[in-house]
Amino acid sequence: MRYDQDISAESKDDLRVVLVSTRNPLNIGASARAMANFGFSRLRVVNAYDVAFREARSAVGAAPLLRAAEEYSSVADAVADCRLVVGTTSVGHRELQHPLRRLEFGARSIGRALAQAPVALLFGSEKFGLTNDEMSHCHWLMRIPTVGGDLSMNLGQAVALCLYELSRDPKAAAAKPPKTIARAAAGETEQVTLLLLEILRKSGYVNPVTAASTEEKVRRLVRRLDIAGRDAPVLLGMLRQILWKVG
Amino acid sequence: MRYDQDISAESKDDLRVVLVSTRNPLNIGASARAMANFGFSRLRVVNAYDVAFREARSAVGAAPLLRAAEEYSSVADAVADCRLVVGTTSVGHRELQHPLRRLEFGARSIGRALAQAPVALLFGSEKFGLTNDEMSHCHWLMRIPTVGGDLSMNLGQAVALCLYELSRDPKAAAAKPPKTIARAAAGETEQVTLLLLEILRKSGYVNPVTAASTEEKVRRLVRRLDIAGRDAPVLLGMLRQILWKVG
Repeated sequence: MRYDQDISAESKDDLRVVLVSTRNPLNIGASARAMANFGFSRLRVVNAYDVAFREARSAVGAAPLLRAAEEYSSVADAVADCRLVVGTTSVGHRELQHPLRRLEFGARSIGRALAQAPVALLFGSEKFGLTNDEMSHCHWLMRIPTVGGDLSMNLGQAVALCLYELSRDPKAAAAKPPKTIARAAAGETEQVTLLLLEILRKSGYVNPVTAASTEEKVRRLVRRLDIAGRDAPVLLGMLRQILWKVG
Repeated sequence: MRYDQDISAESKDDLRVVLVSTRNPLNIGASARAMANFGFSRLRVVNAYDVAFREARSAVGAAPLLRAAEEYSSVADAVADCRLVVGTTSVGHRELQHPLRRLEFGARSIGRALAQAPVALLFGSEKFGLTNDEMSHCHWLMRIPTVGGDLSMNLGQAVALCLYELSRDPKAAAAKPPKTIARAAAGETEQVTLLLLEILRKSGYVNPVTAASTEEKVRRLVRRLDIAGRDAPVLLGMLRQILWKVG
């Protein structure tokens, strides 16, 4: 089960989401909201434009998380208490000096590290991503597997994707089909068939010469409808009313 | 391999991302960008505020996709050519009349359906999500597994998460560890050890009485550093320079 472990709520508190040089307050807000959505709480911002950070703090939703956000003036300070520092990137980078792990795999590695000690997950600026200097603080980089390297990822979306993958339940993906809706009993299905046939006869749809084959066709068609148990009484009510009208 | 199939590029063209009653042009833009990021191309908008749609069309990035977006005035028209219609929700809904599938599982179902025929994936308005009327066009609903039901998900993030999960490669998650960096050969590691010891002796760090045990400590410490092959020559260069200075 090494790769299938859920991350505990405690471990989630050990993840520091670090936004570096973020320029747009909407992105700080969206990142905080994604953190709240997936149960993470520790937000750190490095060199955010003051005004962006102030505006984000005053935005609606996820306010307590933003008020508790910590400000740092360097990446080194922001990650000092972490045992693992991971940078993020979506573009297939130029001359990367770092090992690169795809999000699906990297998130498992982070999950295991979180069980031991705090981990920092770094997101660079909207325009340039993480600089080489900022990346030099990272043990490895996690790549969001987008197609086509030229269109970068929206920052708030990148944060949401990483936190979703960290929170993702692999067991849910491999699950058995969901609880199916109980189907109608054969007796109810046959009642529907008979009522429909009577309506069709009264409406002049059934040709007496081919009546037997029509009955079989209708019976098969009604079976293919695979009527849900709870829908059978509703359908029967409709058909009775129509029969009354055409009869 | 039933649950592990990648969705082909062709299948991706069969997914219609349908934004219903979207109010904020930034969200239309962010949705289009997420589509481009993950290789989807067919965007449909239903009852978007005209101005929101116009503004989104003129935003940077993902422009061709937005220009090709189709406008509809009803959900029925927007999904008419699809064989499967799936609504999305993040909040644990009030009295839902629909089967609910978690994103991890629902995406697999959509992937299989896409191999056969077009599928519509509906996203409701920022404020209210999909209405009951809009949901009544859906075969089932897909739930983004957020924690705590009260904080809804950002629309652009919800689109990104669904498309990511559809594009996600389960094999990548269960992968073997990434290609590790080649370590230094034992000979190089020992060279580093010997140079460091010589520097420590010349610097007066080594007490002659405990010299033998110090040598072992240093040797073990250098092994724990687990020096990468490409770093060994760099380290040796540094140490030679320092030795020259202290010697």
